[in-house]
Formats: sequence, C-alpha cells, structure tokens
Amino acid sequence: PDADARAAAAARQEQLTKPPGSLGRLETLGNWIAACQGTCPPRPLQRTRVVVFAGDHGIARSGVSAYPSEVTAQMVANFRTGGAAVNVLAAASGATVRVVDIAVDADTAAEISTHKVRRSSGAIDREDALTADETAAAISAGAAICDEEVDSGADLLIAGEMGIGNTTPAAVLVAALTDTEPVLVVGRGTGIDDAGWSRKAAAVRDALHRAAPVGPDPQGLLRVAGGADLAAMAGFLAQAAVRRTPVLLDGAVVTAAALVADRLAPGARAWWVAGHRSTEPMHTLALAELDLEPLLDLQLRLGEGSGALAALPLVQAAVATLGEMATFADAGVSTA
Amino acid sequence: PDADARAAAAARQEQLTKPPGSLGRLETLGNWIAACQGTCPPRPLQRTRVVVFAGDHGIARSGVSAYPSEVTAQMVANFRTGGAAVNVLAAASGATVRVVDIAVDADTAAEISTHKVRRSSGAIDREDALTADETAAAISAGAAICDEEVDSGADLLIAGEMGIGNTTPAAVLVAALTDTEPVLVVGRGTGIDDAGWSRKAAAVRDALHRAAPVGPDPQGLLRVAGGADLAAMAGFLAQAAVRRTPVLLDGAVVTAAALVADRLAPGARAWWVAGHRSTEPMHTLALAELDLEPLLDLQLRLGEGSGALAALPLVQAAVATLGEMATFADAGVSTA
Repeated sequence: PDADARAAAAARQEQLTKPPGSLGRLETLGNWIAACQGTCPPRPLQRTRVVVFAGDHGIARSGVSAYPSEVTAQMVANFRTGGAAVNVLAAASGATVRVVDIAVDADTAAEISTHKVRRSSGAIDREDALTADETAAAISAGAAICDEEVDSGADLLIAGEMGIGNTTPAAVLVAALTDTEPVLVVGRGTGIDDAGWSRKAAAVRDALHRAAPVGPDPQGLLRVAGGADLAAMAGFLAQAAVRRTPVLLDGAVVTAAALVADRLAPGARAWWVAGHRSTEPMHTLALAELDLEPLLDLQLRLGEGSGALAALPLVQAAVATLGEMATFADAGVSTA
Repeated sequence: PDADARAAAAARQEQLTKPPGSLGRLETLGNWIAACQGTCPPRPLQRTRVVVFAGDHGIARSGVSAYPSEVTAQMVANFRTGGAAVNVLAAASGATVRVVDIAVDADTAAEISTHKVRRSSGAIDREDALTADETAAAISAGAAICDEEVDSGADLLIAGEMGIGNTTPAAVLVAALTDTEPVLVVGRGTGIDDAGWSRKAAAVRDALHRAAPVGPDPQGLLRVAGGADLAAMAGFLAQAAVRRTPVLLDGAVVTAAALVADRLAPGARAWWVAGHRSTEPMHTLALAELDLEPLLDLQLRLGEGSGALAALPLVQAAVATLGEMATFADAGVSTA
C-alpha cells in the first residue's frame, strides 16, 4: 500500500469535522483503503467480491466433523440458489458471491468447476493431501481466480470457504507455522462433541508428525497437510497483494490459508484486514502471527465468508466518512 | 419484548442452513428484534431514525472541553447541511437523521427548536443544571419526540448527541448511579489535555457533592447535575420502551442518559442494545451497570450517534439472516 496516500488520508482526517482520532479504528481503516488505492480521498468501493472455495477432505471420514461430507456439495447448491448465510449477508452489504469447486467430492456444474483440481484431498493423518503437481495447480488456480476477479473490476476481495472437515487441515497449518501444540489449536469446528474433538486432535497430531520433515515450507505444508481448497485460497490471497487489491479476511480456515500465503508472498499481509475473530482457537493464533487485529468479535464460527461480510459495512463506513465528511473550513466550525 | 417470538426465532435459527449457534451474536441479535416486534421471522427494518439531541452546558466555561461552546451551534448547522459523521454514516446504512435543539446556547431554526427547553444548562459545579419544571419539561420533550418518531413509522431508534461539555454532566450521572469515584469516570472527552482533565475531574467532584442529597433519584439527578439534553434523551429512551420500539445505544453520553432512563422506567433496558464501547471510562461502567455487551469495540469517541450507526448494519444483517436464509429442509442439506 502507498505510504503517501496513507499520510494524505491521515492528514485529511485531522481536517474533518470531528475531534482528531475520534472515529478510532474507522480512521485507520479508511486510511488503509486510501493507501491500497494509492489515492486520497479513496474512491467508494464499487465491487466487493466474495469467492467461496469449496473442497472436501479425506480426513472427514475419520469423524472429525459434526456433518457428513455430502453436505459440502449440498451447501454448494445452496450457495447457487442463494439460501446460505453468505448470500444473505452479501446482498445486505452490496457484495456479490462466486462459488468455485476446487475439490468437492462430487460432480458440480461446469461453470463452477473450471478450476477444479481433484475430487477431495487426501486423509492427512495417513497420506499426503495432494501431489506436488496438484499443489502447484491449486495455488495457480487461486491466483488465476484472483486475476479474473480483479480484471472484472473487483476493488475489495473476500475469500470464503465451504468444506466439511476443513478446520482439521487448517489447524495443522496454523500449528505448524506457529509452533503450537495440537490441543491448543483444535476447536469444535461445526460443533463436534468431546469424542469428536479427541479424534480431531489425534488427526492433527498425526498430520503434524507427517508434516514435520517439510518444516515451514508453504508449498510443502499445503501438499502434505493442507488440501486443494486451502492451496487455492493461499494462491488467491497472495495474488491479491500482487494485484494491489485489498482483502477482508474471514475466519479460521481463511486465516490459516493467509498464514501460508504470507509465506508464499512475504509482506502480502499489508493488503489484508481481519474482518472478525472466530471462536476457533487457531484463529486467534493465526491473527496474532499475522499481527492483524480483527474488526469484529461476535462469536461467529460459520465460515463461508460470513464474518468478513459482517464487517464489510465498517470498511464502507470508513471510506464514506473519509471521503464525504465536511472539513472544519467547509462547515465553518471552530477548531480546538 | 415478547418471549414467545424470541423462542420461535431461536427455534428457527436451528433450522437454518448453518451449524447451530454458528452466527454467534448475530443470532441473539436477530432473536431480540423478533422479540421486540413480537413476530418471527422479524420484518425487515424499514425506518431507522437517529435523533441528535443538541444542548450546551454552563460547565463548558470552566475549561472542561477542548472546544469552545460555539461549536455546538456550528455543528448543528453542519448536521443540517449533511457534513457531519452522523450524516455520512446514516446515509451509508440507510438511516435518516433528525436534529433537535433542546438547550443550544444560540437561536436555531424554528423547525428544530420546537422542543427547546432553555438556552444552555446551569454550571453544575456551582448551580443546578435545571429547575424542577425544566427537568419535567425536558423529559416530556424527549418522550414527545419519541412518540413523533414512532408515530411516523420508526421501527428502530438511535439517540445521538452534540453538546460541548456534555461528557462532564454525563460522568456525574454515571458516577452517582454506579457509586464510582470521580477520577475513575472522567475521560478525555473530545481530547482535553492533562490540565483540562484535572479541571474536569474537579468539576465532576463538585457536582457530585452538590448532587449527594438527591441520592439515586433520576429526576433529582437530572435537575441538579444533568442538563436539558440529557433529560430529554432519558425521556426519549424510556418512552421507546413504552412504545415497544427497539433502540441501538450510542456512546458514553447516551448511555449515561440510558442509565437514568432505566431508573425512570425500570426494565426499559430490555428494549436496548449497545452499539459500541467508546474509549470513555464512564461508558464501560454504565454498560456494565445496564448489563449490556456492546456489538463493536473500535475506539470510537465521537458521539452524534456515530457508534450506533457503525453497528446498525449488524442489526440489519441479523434480521436478514433470520428472515431470509434457507432451512435445511428447503435446501435439501443433511443435518448433523
């Protein structure tokens, strides 16, 4: 992001009819959008695009989720008919939704499967999630999707996800990149019981053991203990920085992919703001590692992009106040 | 709020295509709106109305604010031409703004001064803010304004405020009603320096001493140590409960008035949700006393209704998800 535009925005904030700093985080948020756009005041956001990355995970067969794998494809259908939370929240905040099938364990409509890498990803407690070629293909797919969206005019991006079992590989990525014990990263996901939590913690432990030889290598981690959807999200998030396009991060799974993306493209995090803090323990760990402070903390744990969309109006409000408020001089208001 | 509608909403949340409880606070917020409306699913919010209560305070002459009193009238003019934060944030979230002059120390346009009680309020460190008649008139004015808005179709109300020096009487009200030492309730307001903070703390101490004989009596406190604008806000907030209309609370000053309103109309707090937590220390004390957990914590300290408006899209999102998401049965999605 452009330092001059950020400084110009900070200076403009001091001229607007309010005590300096009194809009708090809305001021720094508006300044960040100005910096991303390289202009002050920032242009109003015209096209916020949510891309939901869908994929299944072999580990789901190990009883790590409260829901069966078939729900992934069922929810993809629900996204396409507009009945899911991501659809309703996008409509409420003026964003649009695209679903991409990266690794759903079913055949889906042609228009959403052009970037499909494979059906499901490997059961990471006993086998690699992907081959090296599949890993590269998935990262490239995510980058290509980002290019498509930016080329179509997106000026703010949100990555969302849907995939039964996907918090298990996400927890492995966060544990590996923050050097955290399995029991501290594993949460309840969609709502598993105690026995399910124990199975999930064991799966994370086994996958971490399998991933130990690759160390913090991002491609290696995605291949051994990630999945095609996570790799695609990481590619998407890294490419957003390359394309100088701001991103509003969603919850635990997306932020796990972001942690990997910041290793793929060091410094990419400067183009991201965290929409919310979810109840998943790994999310707080990943946010701290990325030095990102979330805008909302409302105990959301749905994914799909829902937390980022809940926060989107704050970004819009930040841009609006910076761009549209009167200055002290304009309004004839005395300064302190 | 209606317990049956709230229970019906909670039951509906379990049927929507998401893990139970995964929308966190958005779920309880949507259920609260359903309870306020007495119907499930809730109707979309059609008319959110912000009323900005403007008034001056004699205590401002004691150097308790970073700005001169003339800024109150200047900002009232700014609200009317649409240049203030409250205007921009209202437009961004689909709300409309009404400004009422309750006690501005200047003549203002006829259409905003129909409920004016007096010019300014007394300097509370040495004299009563109001007479008993003025206190009653101000409370009635706030209630009448609430009636006008509800009768005009408002289905969600926000009280905002503008008044140089108004955090000083607000701090006195909070200190008196939470039995807190002056130094613990006094903040920086619009941004005073250390010397100004000391003057403000002394003013709060003196006003608290003057108010001691009235104890926790709400009318007595408003008369001795409040002000016409604070009394009108308290009347407005209490009447909203009488009219069964939900309110999104703003920051420190509005919440101080809310604390008094809940004494005027015990239980009124059930009709309120806290939009945000400001940086003013008294705000956290007042929220705790009211047992309200704010939706946002973004270091705002502007007032005007700005914090409530920043939170408004969350209420809209909560209503939308509860009302518009598909159920598991509708979408053919398997349950856990």
